[in-house]
Amino acid sequence: MSNEIRVFCPATVANISCGFDVLGLALETVGDGMVVRKTTHPGIRITKVVGQELPLEAEKNVAGVAGLALLENLGYQEGFEIEIHKKIKPGSGIGSSAASAAGAVWAINYLLDTPLNRTELVNLAMQGEKLASNVAHADNVAPAIFGGFTLVRSYHPLDIVSIPAPKALYATVIHPQIEIKTADSRKILKTNITLAQGIQQWGNLGGLVAGLYTHDYELIGRSLEDHIVEPIRSILIPEFKTVKEEVKKAGALGSGISGSGPSIFALSKGEKTAQRVAQTMKDIYETTGLDFDIHVSPIGTEGVKLI
Amino acid sequence: MSNEIRVFCPATVANISCGFDVLGLALETVGDGMVVRKTTHPGIRITKVVGQELPLEAEKNVAGVAGLALLENLGYQEGFEIEIHKKIKPGSGIGSSAASAAGAVWAINYLLDTPLNRTELVNLAMQGEKLASNVAHADNVAPAIFGGFTLVRSYHPLDIVSIPAPKALYATVIHPQIEIKTADSRKILKTNITLAQGIQQWGNLGGLVAGLYTHDYELIGRSLEDHIVEPIRSILIPEFKTVKEEVKKAGALGSGISGSGPSIFALSKGEKTAQRVAQTMKDIYETTGLDFDIHVSPIGTEGVKLI
Repeated sequence: MSNEIRVFCPATVANISCGFDVLGLALETVGDGMVVRKTTHPGIRITKVVGQELPLEAEKNVAGVAGLALLENLGYQEGFEIEIHKKIKPGSGIGSSAASAAGAVWAINYLLDTPLNRTELVNLAMQGEKLASNVAHADNVAPAIFGGFTLVRSYHPLDIVSIPAPKALYATVIHPQIEIKTADSRKILKTNITLAQGIQQWGNLGGLVAGLYTHDYELIGRSLEDHIVEPIRSILIPEFKTVKEEVKKAGALGSGISGSGPSIFALSKGEKTAQRVAQTMKDIYETTGLDFDIHVSPIGTEGVKLI
Repeated sequence: MSNEIRVFCPATVANISCGFDVLGLALETVGDGMVVRKTTHPGIRITKVVGQELPLEAEKNVAGVAGLALLENLGYQEGFEIEIHKKIKPGSGIGSSAASAAGAVWAINYLLDTPLNRTELVNLAMQGEKLASNVAHADNVAPAIFGGFTLVRSYHPLDIVSIPAPKALYATVIHPQIEIKTADSRKILKTNITLAQGIQQWGNLGGLVAGLYTHDYELIGRSLEDHIVEPIRSILIPEFKTVKEEVKKAGALGSGISGSGPSIFALSKGEKTAQRVAQTMKDIYETTGLDFDIHVSPIGTEGVKLI
């Protein structure tokens, strides 16, 4: 058993249109790196952060808090050092904090010979998410740990359903470099919806889950609708409507807001279409003068993994 | 090609807890009989109704209206005679009108060498439902025509997702012989729900659909929750809470209101458990002095079918 491992911590897309607060997916090729090693010092030490300014104090660092929650849960007396190689930008809406929290608990659990299952890891990683956004939500950490698509059926008790992604499904994500805090983005949501809106949403959610199991790409596309959150949140995202219309014309199955934004995701069948969608997003955003990143990736089959 | 067929028109359970207004399932062994024959007389003639008092005028009869909608859709110039052998009681909440509407369109389509697909048949059968309850809903006619479980993802355009039922899944249904009109049962619903209730509901709907595809009976059971409609409608159903608690103890995966009630359904893994659940329901209802029927059936693999 090695005392040190290097892991890949995937970026994730939460909500996925009709799955507000319950669905998420992991990306295969976009994510952070993390090195975790056993030490005899008790607790968690963040020894290095590359690529971003993040606190080194474990109690103020998402990976640190998640790791500490795990150590406390197991009553473990020694400790771990964590090096974080950050590539996912904070506030991007593709699960920057979730990647760190998920990576830390997954790696420590691995080095301890996996005493905890994946749902238990999600539960602990949620402590890291709580530090980042004041809400211990699971819609990013669940796919970061399980890979593929995940559905958070319930929080009490935590019940995660892992849904494998069809092989040819690709995500294209554009991250406009403007800042939207998750907290702000939650604030503008309405507390009530109409029953009719709810029916429409759970009809689409059911269609999306069915489409994933039956590899019915057309059904997946038809189900990528959100008449509740998207109309409200999208006003914070420049060119959202144009991107949505144009990526559809470029062949995307559908698109929506990634997490609480500002990133916009699109799903496509096949890499070629996903690249064409990326080009379409690029063309639109180049006219805005805003900085942006674009990622194209298959849906990840695993979540956090050894590299 | 025969000019006369006899078909089985299945009873159906709509809503299925978390799937309000979108989900439904067909029963394998509970349903009406119907004889449909080609004639040269234009239009639809209801020649006989056995087992219930129903209008013989086609325009006032659910099967007649659905059949006429089909003839009009196809511009068909001759006609059909329909004999209805009613076994599903009206107002039972297991799709009495849907069985008639679905049977009529399916049988006529069959006798015309199936010019229409199943989604088109659902669309036409909905005209019969409209006569029965003023709302052209599809959550009973869809499973009656497709069999298994169905999800109505959208009405505009009509998009039905057919979900096969796991083999060992059985339904137990108790029909307390009190009358609740669908219209009344809709009236007491609230127009608004909280976003939090919505999230819980679509989480459960996603879990139920996933459980059906993966044959995860425990997940199916955990997902049979409805915190929106059931708490309101169940007050109209005697002993609802007791039945719900006791069938769970008897081994049912879960239970809920069938359609708009007053029937209560439970799902179980295996016939033995479903029978034990039936006995439990019987024991509870025998103390009430109310008349009731109890049905135990596998989920139907087909909808309407030749007999």
